[in-house]
Amino acid sequence: MNEIHSELLSSDLQETWPLLPPGDRLDGFTLLSRAEAEEFFLSLSARDQAELLLALPLKECRLWIRLLAPDDAADVIQATPAAERGRLLALLDDTTRTEVTALLAYAEDEAGGLMNPRYARVRPDMSVDEAISYLRRQAREQLATIYYAYVLDPQQHLLGVVSFRELFAAPGVKKVQEVMRTDMVTASEQMDQEAVSLLFAQHDLMAIPVVDAEGHLRGIVTVDDIVDVVQEEATEDIQKIGGMEALEGPYLQIGFVRMLRKRAGWLAALFLGEMLTATAMSYYENEIARAVVLALFIPLIISSGGNSGSQASTLVIRAMALGEVRLRDWWWVIRRELAVGLALGTTLGLIGLLRILFWQALFRLYGEHFFLIGLTVACSLVGVVLYGTIAGSMLPFLLRRLGFDPASASAPFVATLVDVSGIVIYFTVASLILRGILL
Amino acid sequence: MNEIHSELLSSDLQETWPLLPPGDRLDGFTLLSRAEAEEFFLSLSARDQAELLLALPLKECRLWIRLLAPDDAADVIQATPAAERGRLLALLDDTTRTEVTALLAYAEDEAGGLMNPRYARVRPDMSVDEAISYLRRQAREQLATIYYAYVLDPQQHLLGVVSFRELFAAPGVKKVQEVMRTDMVTASEQMDQEAVSLLFAQHDLMAIPVVDAEGHLRGIVTVDDIVDVVQEEATEDIQKIGGMEALEGPYLQIGFVRMLRKRAGWLAALFLGEMLTATAMSYYENEIARAVVLALFIPLIISSGGNSGSQASTLVIRAMALGEVRLRDWWWVIRRELAVGLALGTTLGLIGLLRILFWQALFRLYGEHFFLIGLTVACSLVGVVLYGTIAGSMLPFLLRRLGFDPASASAPFVATLVDVSGIVIYFTVASLILRGILL
Repeated sequence: MNEIHSELLSSDLQETWPLLPPGDRLDGFTLLSRAEAEEFFLSLSARDQAELLLALPLKECRLWIRLLAPDDAADVIQATPAAERGRLLALLDDTTRTEVTALLAYAEDEAGGLMNPRYARVRPDMSVDEAISYLRRQAREQLATIYYAYVLDPQQHLLGVVSFRELFAAPGVKKVQEVMRTDMVTASEQMDQEAVSLLFAQHDLMAIPVVDAEGHLRGIVTVDDIVDVVQEEATEDIQKIGGMEALEGPYLQIGFVRMLRKRAGWLAALFLGEMLTATAMSYYENEIARAVVLALFIPLIISSGGNSGSQASTLVIRAMALGEVRLRDWWWVIRRELAVGLALGTTLGLIGLLRILFWQALFRLYGEHFFLIGLTVACSLVGVVLYGTIAGSMLPFLLRRLGFDPASASAPFVATLVDVSGIVIYFTVASLILRGILL
Repeated sequence: MNEIHSELLSSDLQETWPLLPPGDRLDGFTLLSRAEAEEFFLSLSARDQAELLLALPLKECRLWIRLLAPDDAADVIQATPAAERGRLLALLDDTTRTEVTALLAYAEDEAGGLMNPRYARVRPDMSVDEAISYLRRQAREQLATIYYAYVLDPQQHLLGVVSFRELFAAPGVKKVQEVMRTDMVTASEQMDQEAVSLLFAQHDLMAIPVVDAEGHLRGIVTVDDIVDVVQEEATEDIQKIGGMEALEGPYLQIGFVRMLRKRAGWLAALFLGEMLTATAMSYYENEIARAVVLALFIPLIISSGGNSGSQASTLVIRAMALGEVRLRDWWWVIRRELAVGLALGTTLGLIGLLRILFWQALFRLYGEHFFLIGLTVACSLVGVVLYGTIAGSMLPFLLRRLGFDPASASAPFVATLVDVSGIVIYFTVASLILRGILL
């Protein structure tokens, strides 16, 4: 009965956690059974773990922080206010503290910051049988992730790697160096986490060793940490594509002021850019006054440019993030987008023309020059959609070339860029087709 | 020298692969050394592997397809035209063919389609020493992923799991059932791959067992496959957020017609929706004729609504995909977005008002009623941005409630929705403030 109650509580706590004030979180946590509390604690984000640890009494806090592997402990300490870090570090045992301190020197988003300094190691001249019993000893002494065993020389240079499957499958008397692989995928300590995750995706590995410039093994990055990295990077890109700064935290847990700042900056910048539409429109004020009917189609035309631009920029941003498209592929992309933009523009132009002819037949809204108005709208659509597609697909290249994140070529950014030009294109086409007739 | 040449070729081939015609791909591939060809082949996507296999002579083809684990072979066969599948299946050895045929019954995007039917198994009453030598025998016989050993009863019911680390660390004479864990995270065969990837992210596991309704172990999903799933799902969401159908393939490899279809559908649908702006504008044709100055600010105002809506919908879509926000959290979200929308709208309104006052002082563009015009623009901005924020944040909830993918609440979709209402809000505010003065 007690267990059922506790089960309910654990899933309840998981669900309501993001909405609970810190005090209630602690209360809920202390009500869990030891086994549940352990699983629950390990499933929390580093930020939440840090918050919980700081709220616990000292003895409890030591117990919980020692549950963490060195790389996870380093993440928790990085998520702690600077003033409290020393206090948490002091709670670790000596070996772990040394390892964690070394890890804290790396940025959170590079290979060094992701790696675990405890790995399974063997020597090249051991027999397979010796290696297996050596690994059993290592497993007893430390919390290593065992999937690959790394073959090191006495100076800790990485010579090769052997998976557990290979080690187990090999005859017991063979030497490790006879069964190890020497063509390995490795990462440098400073490699960006996005590049590390592409290595994992490309080679389907369970762990990648991190080596320094001299070839010493420094630690291993395991694929379970990469799932989080991939989620995190995708979230950042998606939020940027949506036209804002990356939140860097779960939606429900970001404070109001922080949320506002992340959104207001880009929104205000886009607003200032969009003001150019008012400037552009004021150049055509006389044309609008003479032919108000032209004004009716402005939102339709400029938004079509924005939509086609948003498609193109999103495609290119994502293809770049996945490593499918690189800077020098821009020429290939522009040729394809030119063709796609022309085809899409023609499609929308035809729909627009038909719509105007049809509405005219039904409601007689557009006066005697309805056909020329329809033609103006159709030709403008071809131009605006083509322009939107090209601008949308090239902006990510331009941003990357200039050293910015291509994901900043957000749908709203491209739309703003295209809106101003769309107005100019529309009124230019109109003055060509309608000059002397309506204008 | 020969090796250096071959090294260059392998990385060259990797880079140019997406752009090569099938014949050249085959030529390049056959030039690689055996070891490189093996690594290269395993790094290809299932689609590319299938294409290459079909182009190879029969004997070569058998060699290469037998390199693949059953789950990967099933992926390749799923990527092959139906007419060719039998031919590839016939090349597998009997055991693998049975396993692959069983896997083909599952959809590609559910747990059953991701799982590997070969896993390391032990019995609960074995001693740890016995279990380790039993695992060594299994490793010799089959290509199992060894990280966890699964404890099964004679009827193949999953009783528990023990990680290799735990097995290695335990005293050799202990029974497996004394060291195994029984509180496991498992997936059902039909569980959606997005849900499976959330399980991995939440529990930081290397593999999750797939069990059927009776508790039999059917296979295991390993985390390295999940990295691909997470990338794939994020790509789909990003492309939908950009206002198009998911491409389902790398940008550079999608054919022109397929690319066009994926983009034209949504673009045309958005265009038809956006036509309502022309209808809405025609209701206000007289107002525009009387005060052309009002038309100047239409793009500025409606795009601000679209931008704020795009921010809100993107945030909610991503939070839903990560499991941070669920359907029943809508009330919490709407209250927060109401406050955020009001704050953002007020900010933009103030900037807009200042801009009009400033431009009037500089260029005298807006006539004697410039202050009332500024006020109209400012008040409309508050309304439009608030409306955009609420519409953008609620649309994903509505779509999910109706059984659609919330990611379809794309930036362009929200913008289109908000554009029409934005025009109505603007002219309503204008008629309230300017009636009897300009209108």
